[in-house]
Amino acid sequence: MNIPLNKIFRKLSPYVPGEQPSEKNFIKLNTNENPFPVPKEVINAIREQIDGSIRKYPDPEAYGLRKAIGKHYGFDPGWIFAGNGSDEILRLCITAFSSKDDYVAFLHPSYPLYEVLATISDRKPCRVNLKSDFNIPDDFMNIYNLYMKIIANPDSPSGCFHPVDQIRDIAKKLRRVLVIDEAYADFSKDNCLNLVKDFENVIVVRTFSKSFSLAGMRIGYCFGNPRLISALLKIKDSYNLNTISQVAGISAINHYDVMMENCRKIIRNRDYLKGELEKIGFYVFPSSANFILVKPLHIKAEDLYKVLKEKRILVRYFGTPLLKDYLRITIGSKKEIKVLMSAIKEII
Amino acid sequence: MNIPLNKIFRKLSPYVPGEQPSEKNFIKLNTNENPFPVPKEVINAIREQIDGSIRKYPDPEAYGLRKAIGKHYGFDPGWIFAGNGSDEILRLCITAFSSKDDYVAFLHPSYPLYEVLATISDRKPCRVNLKSDFNIPDDFMNIYNLYMKIIANPDSPSGCFHPVDQIRDIAKKLRRVLVIDEAYADFSKDNCLNLVKDFENVIVVRTFSKSFSLAGMRIGYCFGNPRLISALLKIKDSYNLNTISQVAGISAINHYDVMMENCRKIIRNRDYLKGELEKIGFYVFPSSANFILVKPLHIKAEDLYKVLKEKRILVRYFGTPLLKDYLRITIGSKKEIKVLMSAIKEII
Repeated sequence: MNIPLNKIFRKLSPYVPGEQPSEKNFIKLNTNENPFPVPKEVINAIREQIDGSIRKYPDPEAYGLRKAIGKHYGFDPGWIFAGNGSDEILRLCITAFSSKDDYVAFLHPSYPLYEVLATISDRKPCRVNLKSDFNIPDDFMNIYNLYMKIIANPDSPSGCFHPVDQIRDIAKKLRRVLVIDEAYADFSKDNCLNLVKDFENVIVVRTFSKSFSLAGMRIGYCFGNPRLISALLKIKDSYNLNTISQVAGISAINHYDVMMENCRKIIRNRDYLKGELEKIGFYVFPSSANFILVKPLHIKAEDLYKVLKEKRILVRYFGTPLLKDYLRITIGSKKEIKVLMSAIKEII
Repeated sequence: MNIPLNKIFRKLSPYVPGEQPSEKNFIKLNTNENPFPVPKEVINAIREQIDGSIRKYPDPEAYGLRKAIGKHYGFDPGWIFAGNGSDEILRLCITAFSSKDDYVAFLHPSYPLYEVLATISDRKPCRVNLKSDFNIPDDFMNIYNLYMKIIANPDSPSGCFHPVDQIRDIAKKLRRVLVIDEAYADFSKDNCLNLVKDFENVIVVRTFSKSFSLAGMRIGYCFGNPRLISALLKIKDSYNLNTISQVAGISAINHYDVMMENCRKIIRNRDYLKGELEKIGFYVFPSSANFILVKPLHIKAEDLYKVLKEKRILVRYFGTPLLKDYLRITIGSKKEIKVLMSAIKEII
């Protein structure tokens, strides 16, 4: 029997997440996880919550978590949505803020998931190439204003921070919703959160996976005008965020200071790694995130990726036409960076 | 600014999950949660897993969980998919096994989410009314064979078990995928799991929310031909199932005997509650699930629902044209049933 699958499978190239090796003895600098542990207090809060209450369904609207996030950032819970990782939120934004066969515009190279999600949702992906320095080209700002737009800021894999004024200009001209994916905002000096109050077509998406060291718990959240938030609430899976992740998020936001201290360490390590790589002649793009995009010297990026993997150090190699000369390296602990640097020096 | 939302919002009536009161002093017989606690061993296994590992992303394909489920039920992991509750799996099945503008056929009244998911996914819902005894009508079996079909078995809210031979007949005639939602299968004497091996167009969906007392952890799974499973893997959110839920599922399946013992108690309580309600003249449909659908005597279903709620007992009232005379009551513990029965006797 020839089972008819969705026609999208004819054209879909699924997003491939970074490797998660099952063996433990890898230095993982490939998926932008935080090298610093979850605060003890958060671990304890989660452990305490593992009790009889998991027998019952979670709060479908994650009100306690939205309230805790809102309190910290100065927003009413009606301005906040929480989801099963920011990936779920990005998918729901596409469903809520565009209709089938609409175009969805995004930059390239950026987070490849945007194109996958648009395709899966029967939208038409509109891919606009970044300039060679990974900045936003003028045509993305000035045209496609009837398409929903998604921008990562800081962007990945470049680490580039697109200036707030530039994003503000895009929001102003756009007749549809602008989704700003701020997964890496806590590693940057600036962010676009205030635009949410100024423009009723702006959504800012954040996550606990990077700066809060909670990638395993899948907790994303976003800010936006209550009209946009209520649309997301209407189309999400009924109980999209499990009980324990809600508790973990509340506890993490209550230990915001620990997270920020870790972010400051990562920024210091980022500067250090950039310096070390530049010393041996690598080109390193300026980064506002917890990773750097680098162009190796005297060795093909793909070869360096492979030899590092043999030495049980994982970095990210994309291998697409625009990125084949680059590696993206997550900022690890000082110790991990030192192991990485001596491995690279041995190889090249 | 008039933000354009997805056109589906013009016709969408979102699914309304059962109430989850924030106060604790309710007897909750409205969302088919299990009255029996999660086994101590499972609680401990989850607590132990709350450690540094939640800093990292989960296994994107939940291989360990799929292996544990497969080992128990006699399937290779390639025949199994795991998701963020069975609601996610149902949504993914619609995306994977039908294309935009296709019809999706399901029975009515049944789980109202099927229609919502079809609408959100830009499919055309094809609602086929059950017979007045909540059995499947002949036209559902014999026509619509070019539409993907979804059937809950045991069905909700009736509790009715549709005979395996009848479902087999549907699968045989169907030229598309048949999704059998077996959320309540562990409370029934029979199930359709074997059909997965006989027909390459059959998916059987299960959940840890009901029989395993883990509604708060959001763990669903399904069985199907590897071609179908691989389609689901391609379109899911990258890390759809968090680290802790994967661990909880593995531990729960390893304590299958505790779960089955609880199910047997629920079945005994179901017979007891049915008997008690029949004694006072209520009509109770025969149920193969952990709830019963009842038609009260001498009082409107809606009024009984309201007065019970005032007495802090929640049951489910749907209020739709075909269900306005009925209440769905989750089978609680013996103690909860006794409180419910004396409340009902006071009211009527």
